[in-house]
Amino acid sequence: MQTAYRPIRVALLGAGSVGSQVARLLIENRDELAQRVGTDVELAGVLVRDPNLTRDAVIPKNLLTSDAEKLILGSDIVIELLGGIEPAKTYVRMALESGADVVTANKALIAAHGPELFDLAEQLGAQLYFEAAVGGAIPIIRPLRESLAGDKVNRVMGIVNGTTNFILDRMESTGADFDEALAEATALGYAEADPTADIEGFDAASKAAILASLAFHSEVPVEKVYREGISAITAITIETARQAGYTVKLLAICERVGEGLVARVHPTLIPLTHPLAAVRGAYNAVFVEAESAGQLMFYGAGAGGTQTASAVLGDLVSAAKRHLAGGPGLSDSVHADLESLPVQEIETRYQITLQVLDLPGVLASIASIFATHDVSVETVSQTPAEEDALLTVMTHRASESDLEQVVASLRKNEAVRNVTSVIRVEGM
Amino acid sequence: MQTAYRPIRVALLGAGSVGSQVARLLIENRDELAQRVGTDVELAGVLVRDPNLTRDAVIPKNLLTSDAEKLILGSDIVIELLGGIEPAKTYVRMALESGADVVTANKALIAAHGPELFDLAEQLGAQLYFEAAVGGAIPIIRPLRESLAGDKVNRVMGIVNGTTNFILDRMESTGADFDEALAEATALGYAEADPTADIEGFDAASKAAILASLAFHSEVPVEKVYREGISAITAITIETARQAGYTVKLLAICERVGEGLVARVHPTLIPLTHPLAAVRGAYNAVFVEAESAGQLMFYGAGAGGTQTASAVLGDLVSAAKRHLAGGPGLSDSVHADLESLPVQEIETRYQITLQVLDLPGVLASIASIFATHDVSVETVSQTPAEEDALLTVMTHRASESDLEQVVASLRKNEAVRNVTSVIRVEGM
Repeated sequence: MQTAYRPIRVALLGAGSVGSQVARLLIENRDELAQRVGTDVELAGVLVRDPNLTRDAVIPKNLLTSDAEKLILGSDIVIELLGGIEPAKTYVRMALESGADVVTANKALIAAHGPELFDLAEQLGAQLYFEAAVGGAIPIIRPLRESLAGDKVNRVMGIVNGTTNFILDRMESTGADFDEALAEATALGYAEADPTADIEGFDAASKAAILASLAFHSEVPVEKVYREGISAITAITIETARQAGYTVKLLAICERVGEGLVARVHPTLIPLTHPLAAVRGAYNAVFVEAESAGQLMFYGAGAGGTQTASAVLGDLVSAAKRHLAGGPGLSDSVHADLESLPVQEIETRYQITLQVLDLPGVLASIASIFATHDVSVETVSQTPAEEDALLTVMTHRASESDLEQVVASLRKNEAVRNVTSVIRVEGM
Repeated sequence: MQTAYRPIRVALLGAGSVGSQVARLLIENRDELAQRVGTDVELAGVLVRDPNLTRDAVIPKNLLTSDAEKLILGSDIVIELLGGIEPAKTYVRMALESGADVVTANKALIAAHGPELFDLAEQLGAQLYFEAAVGGAIPIIRPLRESLAGDKVNRVMGIVNGTTNFILDRMESTGADFDEALAEATALGYAEADPTADIEGFDAASKAAILASLAFHSEVPVEKVYREGISAITAITIETARQAGYTVKLLAICERVGEGLVARVHPTLIPLTHPLAAVRGAYNAVFVEAESAGQLMFYGAGAGGTQTASAVLGDLVSAAKRHLAGGPGLSDSVHADLESLPVQEIETRYQITLQVLDLPGVLASIASIFATHDVSVETVSQTPAEEDALLTVMTHRASESDLEQVVASLRKNEAVRNVTSVIRVEGM
């Protein structure tokens, strides 16, 4: 056991649900951490807005400070848990420029400014760790960057937002409609007062950008991620899916398409037998298809203070060991430089539900629309719905651009009252 | 992109199903690997018994050699895929002593001689990577060693043998008995001609020793792993389990018990709703319970040439990067030094099935045996079986040593014809 080194000084930026847990673990497990790292790991200070506010007693009062610069410049490793872009970005840059390694759980920052920050870190010989930014406690960054470093990833499909998975799971298990399930999620603390970032897929899109950039060694701007939320999903959508042997999940899907990649977030039908279908409640999972490794899945708690703190501490131990021994750390690489293509470039299967007039000839007219645009139909089922009929069409694999034309034509067709839903089908 | 370094010379020991895939990937993806590593990675030679034998055309003839010493001493990184203890151990020691880093997929070697080899590597400043030794393609070693380095693992439960999982899955899905399912596994190449190492749990025990040593930072000799195979599992066991809401899996379970740890391999009932229950066919998965991270699961192909080669290549990239940049690598640590305790130290739930005389007073007499030894019964169900009755008893949590006494007393009881099965129940 080497203990001749001077202690490693750690600055913690933020004392929210994750920050206070990280502080607690740093204080409670100080001896254990020292053994793992090879020297003492000392919590040098905790940045808060107002050190005089009463808060969780776990952090000694004398560690609280509102002087970011002094704290950062006096530390070897900076843990950024402020969230959002500013001032987090300024502080992360300041830390890297001072020679400190940085550990962050900030998905928004990494998704929006990752390439710039990784470049800066590389120039300065510093490291930026972000295991906690995707999938909370689930180790996914390290497996993608290191374990699969000698393989070729073709596809990543992730349940990366616990709020939406909880809502969809409740809708499926109780038959509740979207608003009811959202209200339950809010009451239980799974959804925030303004749930837009979760239910409209913005949070998942940030994570999709990060996953895609890691899996394909390419820069993936979050603006290039196609995004569709779950607020249009109804109890009927879910019941129809279930009867056909599918479940509805909000998936972040990143895949190679030709010489580029497509990253997208949308409600998706997956077969009940698929490993992702068994991911219930607020759990997260990332399913990876690699050329040699085949199918892999990583499952766990996607959020929560202590869970996310576990991932932060794992990164901290890596950073601290590297601080003592030097070495390459987790250098990022965008050598492949695949272009982010629009969602129209994908091919997949689709389930389309339509409300149509219940008249002779309607089915034929609708079938011909699919045929005209080269979209091959696998199954059609028709059920009566008040005066109309509800038609559920499952296609074979088709291109998204062809399908868009089908949907546009359907909307113009006089026999179609309403295109109720268009959902992509994956995992077959 | 730095390419000013001299190429990294890689020796491959073994050209079996994994070795030939590793050779193929090294040759086919040479440019890609050079980009990822930062310099050329050159396959310097492949150790085989007889270079003149005809074999897979993927390896150029001129790379084949039977001169182990010359090959190893001329290499920077040695990939050991021979399996078994000798000569693998001699070659790994030779490689480490020559200053080479070693990548191995050899679970038997790591389980039996890991501590000695890790010590040697540490003394010499070399590294020994073994991601492929447990769970094939599934990244599990790195997450346990690094991602959870700041957390405290309490329990690991793994489906770590694909052959037995395939057999149990077939028995469950088709109602086949053990011999039929084994014959099918053999016909499909999932079981070897002599399947003893798989079905009697020896393979899983090696992996349990490795998982326990990583999860608990302690030396775990494979002889200390309690082991029970699946050959006594019948179609009836599985059907009874299914009806009660359970499935039967061969699990490798490693857990903290008091100030020590217990590692064990045995058929186990787990609820159908548990994430491990969804692991079908020859797939593997490792379920981890950590203090902060909560429940995590890692899922994927546990064996297969290309799949295992993916894990080997991931380690190779790590080793090659470290070769260029230095640094701590994946240093192992047995700082916690927990003692491996006997299985009698555990507490869990049990399902016991008994063939008993169908007479008045028998149930009372059996119930009193459980009570005498302080084992509390949760449910009892009785079904007629020919002239006798079949009794299925599910206990509450009880200590293994108390349960052993119950079973001994049951065996001596005149009303008990046969204790048909005793299966531990986990994952509640």
